[in-house]
Amino acid sequence: MAVPLAPLAVALGDPAGIGPEIVAAAWTARVTRGLPPFFAIGDLRSIRAVWDGPVVVLGAPGDAAAMFPHALPLVQVDDPGEIVPGQPNLPGARCALDSLEIAVWLTRTGTASGIVTGPVSKAQLYQIGFTYPGQTEFIAERCGVAGGNVVMMLAGPTLRTVPVTIHTAFAQVPSVLTTDLIVSRARVAARGLQRDFDIAAPRLAVAGLNPHAGENGTLGRQEIDVILPAIEILRAEGIDVTGPMSADAMFHPIARARYDAAICMYHDQALIPLKTIHFDDGVNITLGLPIVRTSPDHGTAFDIAGKGLASPEAMIAAICMAGEAAARRARG
Amino acid sequence: MAVPLAPLAVALGDPAGIGPEIVAAAWTARVTRGLPPFFAIGDLRSIRAVWDGPVVVLGAPGDAAAMFPHALPLVQVDDPGEIVPGQPNLPGARCALDSLEIAVWLTRTGTASGIVTGPVSKAQLYQIGFTYPGQTEFIAERCGVAGGNVVMMLAGPTLRTVPVTIHTAFAQVPSVLTTDLIVSRARVAARGLQRDFDIAAPRLAVAGLNPHAGENGTLGRQEIDVILPAIEILRAEGIDVTGPMSADAMFHPIARARYDAAICMYHDQALIPLKTIHFDDGVNITLGLPIVRTSPDHGTAFDIAGKGLASPEAMIAAICMAGEAAARRARG
Repeated sequence: MAVPLAPLAVALGDPAGIGPEIVAAAWTARVTRGLPPFFAIGDLRSIRAVWDGPVVVLGAPGDAAAMFPHALPLVQVDDPGEIVPGQPNLPGARCALDSLEIAVWLTRTGTASGIVTGPVSKAQLYQIGFTYPGQTEFIAERCGVAGGNVVMMLAGPTLRTVPVTIHTAFAQVPSVLTTDLIVSRARVAARGLQRDFDIAAPRLAVAGLNPHAGENGTLGRQEIDVILPAIEILRAEGIDVTGPMSADAMFHPIARARYDAAICMYHDQALIPLKTIHFDDGVNITLGLPIVRTSPDHGTAFDIAGKGLASPEAMIAAICMAGEAAARRARG
Repeated sequence: MAVPLAPLAVALGDPAGIGPEIVAAAWTARVTRGLPPFFAIGDLRSIRAVWDGPVVVLGAPGDAAAMFPHALPLVQVDDPGEIVPGQPNLPGARCALDSLEIAVWLTRTGTASGIVTGPVSKAQLYQIGFTYPGQTEFIAERCGVAGGNVVMMLAGPTLRTVPVTIHTAFAQVPSVLTTDLIVSRARVAARGLQRDFDIAAPRLAVAGLNPHAGENGTLGRQEIDVILPAIEILRAEGIDVTGPMSADAMFHPIARARYDAAICMYHDQALIPLKTIHFDDGVNITLGLPIVRTSPDHGTAFDIAGKGLASPEAMIAAICMAGEAAARRARG
């Protein structure tokens, strides 16, 4: 008999954001949506402020799986004091960071089979001394992986995209974008599709940078000088790669059916199509880590926190995807 | 009694492309899709190569409306010789240019109420001495309008976008993008929405350039230095403008419902969402001209020409949109 998989660790994110309510909504939908067992990490009061369902505060995280059918299992972090939905503060940011730290630790030590991270406020985190560009780089560091070796993939039911450059100002993209960087991101993406999505021979579509992929160099030369050499290196490694493709012609349904992930040159090239199609159910999955990590692809939404307006779809999708990836890794 | 509107002039575009077959397919669908009367301009043999329906070669273009219910009316241009679908040649490019020239002339003189242009091969046109960036600039020049004063709007059933910079290499966008250019494009767009789409108080959403619209300047300053000043000028003129918006968050269905057109900073920012959603039925409408002009938002598709694979949806949508815009202009 197979040993049951450990539950997932779900960090609630900023306690004043929509994290607590969407995690509670996900637990409520556990049966109808077929969610894998998980426990939350964060502050009880942040849940109580927005939800009146059953919560069990765990003494030992190992009890989470047994409790999951009956109540939302919670690992309580240091009490941040009063939480008002929509009003972030520094104790709340500390609570979010503690939750993340504990989630990583419990996953690295095997008590959890993967991490799902709720949305945090980077502006608040920076004020308490957080020095990473985002949660992803923090997790990578705790796992002993250089930040540059992990890859953010945005995944919805009908599209997966990987931005090669991410939080880079538009004008800096041409200088940051190198053949090596494209090769590195695409390699990790291909390996991640095999490891976490069970796709034996992943098909990658690499976007061009310029309009119409540069029209043979007349509208920019990055396709010829930077992107095509990367494609040739990847092909020589046996990876199934097409491109450089005209970015405006690669995201309609027929085009999307031809690849497993689009390798995009900049943030909005990856995020515009993903959020246009999958605004409510897009998942951010981090590839290249020794552990499974997903996140709903949206922010804290302080403006609607506590009002019952937040859609839990992306959180539900993130939990499902983490569960599936963890199961695949467990199968080897 | 209202005087009936003149028919539309539909230039077939490159005779070896998919233009002839999609125009014939549009005529076939004239009743079921409620198309306004139109006549084609181009070469009979290019139609005969791909379609065996009825064609009436017009002696006088004024006869088109009477013939339209019974046969596809055609204004024959100088015979380009043999046409093989999928094999463009220079006489074919000359035929496409002649068709365009005649279409503009017939529309400017009132024999047609608007122009719909089929797809052309710019590479072929350049070889016969065509010196314009595209058909749009040619039409603008023939109408006595400076190319910079016309605006390309991409329009589908649920989204309209306007690229402020168009065929500009990615790296050049930050230097080409100015406050004046954004203001100018947005003004023409707002006026075009009133004139051709009957929207009394158009709502424009202006995109940012950088990821997350620059995050208050930390990911690029164009939002603060270039885009926001443009928005302030437009608002002072009474135009309903929001922005700068994070480009990845403005194209999902709920966001799209809040504006009539998205003003986009570069080609792919406008074209990626449009073609992701409306790949088969996107229309390019030129605003700022004294005449109505639309075009299906796709190319010649030489690879599938003559094979019966081309979707006529965009051509049908372009003809409908031109007819509606012409009717609105006629009503004043």
